[in-house]
Amino acid sequence: MRIRDGNDLKAFFEPDSIAVFGSLKDGMGLGYGAIRNMLEFGFKGRIYPVNPNYTEVLGLKAYAAVGEVSESIDLAVVITPAPTVPEIIDQCAQKGVKAAIIVSEHFAESGDSGARLQQQLVDIARRSNIRIMGPNTIGTLNTVNGLVTTPYLLGYSRIQKGGIAYCSQSGIVAAQCQPLEDKAYPISKMCDLANKCDVNEVDILNYLADDPETEVVAMHMEDVRDGQGFMEAARRLTARKPLLIFRPARSEAGARASASHTGSLAGKDEVYDSAIKQVGAIRVNTWQKFWETPRIFNPQRTIEGNRIAIIAYSGGAGVVAVDAAEEAGLALAGFTPVTSDRLRRIGSRAARNPVDLGPVLSAASDTVSVQDEAITAILEDENVDCASIALYVGVLAPEQYIVELLERLTQSISKPVTIWLYGTQLSMLEETSRLLEARGLPTFTELETAVKALGMLAEYSRFRSDSVHNAA
Amino acid sequence: MRIRDGNDLKAFFEPDSIAVFGSLKDGMGLGYGAIRNMLEFGFKGRIYPVNPNYTEVLGLKAYAAVGEVSESIDLAVVITPAPTVPEIIDQCAQKGVKAAIIVSEHFAESGDSGARLQQQLVDIARRSNIRIMGPNTIGTLNTVNGLVTTPYLLGYSRIQKGGIAYCSQSGIVAAQCQPLEDKAYPISKMCDLANKCDVNEVDILNYLADDPETEVVAMHMEDVRDGQGFMEAARRLTARKPLLIFRPARSEAGARASASHTGSLAGKDEVYDSAIKQVGAIRVNTWQKFWETPRIFNPQRTIEGNRIAIIAYSGGAGVVAVDAAEEAGLALAGFTPVTSDRLRRIGSRAARNPVDLGPVLSAASDTVSVQDEAITAILEDENVDCASIALYVGVLAPEQYIVELLERLTQSISKPVTIWLYGTQLSMLEETSRLLEARGLPTFTELETAVKALGMLAEYSRFRSDSVHNAA
Repeated sequence: MRIRDGNDLKAFFEPDSIAVFGSLKDGMGLGYGAIRNMLEFGFKGRIYPVNPNYTEVLGLKAYAAVGEVSESIDLAVVITPAPTVPEIIDQCAQKGVKAAIIVSEHFAESGDSGARLQQQLVDIARRSNIRIMGPNTIGTLNTVNGLVTTPYLLGYSRIQKGGIAYCSQSGIVAAQCQPLEDKAYPISKMCDLANKCDVNEVDILNYLADDPETEVVAMHMEDVRDGQGFMEAARRLTARKPLLIFRPARSEAGARASASHTGSLAGKDEVYDSAIKQVGAIRVNTWQKFWETPRIFNPQRTIEGNRIAIIAYSGGAGVVAVDAAEEAGLALAGFTPVTSDRLRRIGSRAARNPVDLGPVLSAASDTVSVQDEAITAILEDENVDCASIALYVGVLAPEQYIVELLERLTQSISKPVTIWLYGTQLSMLEETSRLLEARGLPTFTELETAVKALGMLAEYSRFRSDSVHNAA
Repeated sequence: MRIRDGNDLKAFFEPDSIAVFGSLKDGMGLGYGAIRNMLEFGFKGRIYPVNPNYTEVLGLKAYAAVGEVSESIDLAVVITPAPTVPEIIDQCAQKGVKAAIIVSEHFAESGDSGARLQQQLVDIARRSNIRIMGPNTIGTLNTVNGLVTTPYLLGYSRIQKGGIAYCSQSGIVAAQCQPLEDKAYPISKMCDLANKCDVNEVDILNYLADDPETEVVAMHMEDVRDGQGFMEAARRLTARKPLLIFRPARSEAGARASASHTGSLAGKDEVYDSAIKQVGAIRVNTWQKFWETPRIFNPQRTIEGNRIAIIAYSGGAGVVAVDAAEEAGLALAGFTPVTSDRLRRIGSRAARNPVDLGPVLSAASDTVSVQDEAITAILEDENVDCASIALYVGVLAPEQYIVELLERLTQSISKPVTIWLYGTQLSMLEETSRLLEARGLPTFTELETAVKALGMLAEYSRFRSDSVHNAA
């Protein structure tokens, strides 16, 4: 076995030059798609299309074979029929290509003959220096250098740069499956490990632990290929930054389905669950939580306690949020007498946690200043570690003001706040969500998820605090 | 105690005439808001604004007192300060008003003095024939006659007419808190029972059981005031149509929070859970499921078994769906040899359940006809009771064609199908969702919810089937 080193993966994410193998048919070919996506994302390196049937595509010279390229090549992206792939990888290895992303399907996920083909790839990787991601993968994405290897035309070309690395074992966690521009999740890197014939979860955890742009890792995984290696790499990562894990294939039927699409052999869920806890990672159990929760994390942000303030504009929403808080291991903050007094002057139902600002809004003449006063008092309270707001967006509701108020408060007080928006018009909700997100205030599709994200932050904070104590 | 009869509530939902008590201040007053909403929704009955400070509002004559109205009045909507309410209700009772919705706050939810004020209302209701909804309620909505009593300006005026009745114990399940026009949930009635000083869950269940426009009832409730009555009324309803119950206040902290906003005393959750099962109702546990799941139900629709086909455009999505299916008590359908053969000709990964059409889409020259062939074969399979589709919407994906295909298939085969859409652009997802919804094909915010809705339909179907057997 090779010695695995995070820097091994550099060529997958930070290549200076890429060779693309695949159909260059205008508008339709998958090689064409990958190149066009790279150009639209503003990839900064050199691109070499390789296909004997073309001399030029999208303004780039095409080559009949990789050996004809005189410059060095860091990364190969291969999207050709499965039987042609081993020969291509062999040529790449001879050319000195450092890394290959094999998008092609019909390998181990497709039965015995595919598995034999995949073994040929492993053999080439073992006897040369080339490393392989996939096969059956969508590959990688890097917001810093404009790298994107997805062969499907995306219909967008901008992704918000930020600290989240999403990686997965399925193409569904990839740029062509998510409205990444619209959602504006702040992303550093993405990758799809798929069949994991060579590069696996251990390599990627090590690489992302060292990656200075990545502040939090969200990992979708159906199985682990190297249990011991995973535990070590995950521990190394969680000592530096948060790790969220979404592991489907929890059920027996799910494990069987997993085997048939990535050739994986998922083990018992209790084993995974226990391993995830042991390494200090945080488990998320739905698709939506996988995408939305990471925004609450960064390596520096921890909270001292688990006391949440819930601010709602309806008593009913408050109760739903309290259930979610208790399920997430959070405690309802008890306000100090000073805060309670301040709030009581605003309204009787505003003085208790969960705070209900609904009656205040419908009775006050100046709804803006009472909300300002109430939210400020709550966030300033020393008994409050974090807050979740169910914010009403509707006709006459002063969104813009509240957005600015929350921006001001969260900057000066630096307590984490999550927001769920509700109201009468989707367009207003989306617009307000964009305003908040642009100011670093995360909004959530569901009220319960907004609350539970804070529970995960508290869990991560406890883990970090325990680690420090144990190290001392 | 009065004898409770469903028809008692007719005046709350089907009034010919309404008196509105509250501020008529232009654009701001809550009485003004309620009247303007009614006018914009096209309420078909007479409206009498009652406020001594005005002679006219929105083209309607205003009255100084309800006694000055010479015509009969079915319903009063009261949005005045709490201390003024008993006197108003007394006058309404003397005038022969049949029903009163008390929007005003500061009653039992606000402590002892509020509770005493609320008791005065109960006393008036007991000694007269007037019935009271609330206080602290948003009131009712009826899509058939354009009735809406919400005093907050909505910013929309159309709600899709249909078979779902949403009722709740909180104003958050109301027209001013949900994008009902954008979401196009097909709605018959809505109501908010709030403090339940008179009209409670028993009345509303009886009324909705008899309501010919209501095909399924989705009820948010934090507590039950009349346990015995609830069991009887819920059983009477579930013998005719499905009943979904969303009960927050599950946690201890949630129960305390509930008490402070509706004056309710929620009991142990296990008691509620067992009661919900006993009456054949279906429990939903999140906000999103409460809103989205009812569309899968109508009184006639049941399925014979619990065998689901999962159709995805990614192996990873298939695994997530399989986990959800197993958690929801569904079994993965095993296709007949005929279907398996048909699917195998399309692609190796299309032949197993969960079906992965991703490889087919990326390889086929005519992606439309292979999808048509695959989805038709699956839905026609006699071993398939229902299906959930994770449908990819992106550049080059033939949405319009798939929408029409699904419409055609679900009409001819009449098996329930739920859909989760994913892809690169929110606008494309929303547009495709609208196309599907308009054809009666429910789409869901989350993949897991789309699958679990079918589990709830299977649960309801078993209950109906058992009831028939027990009756025979």
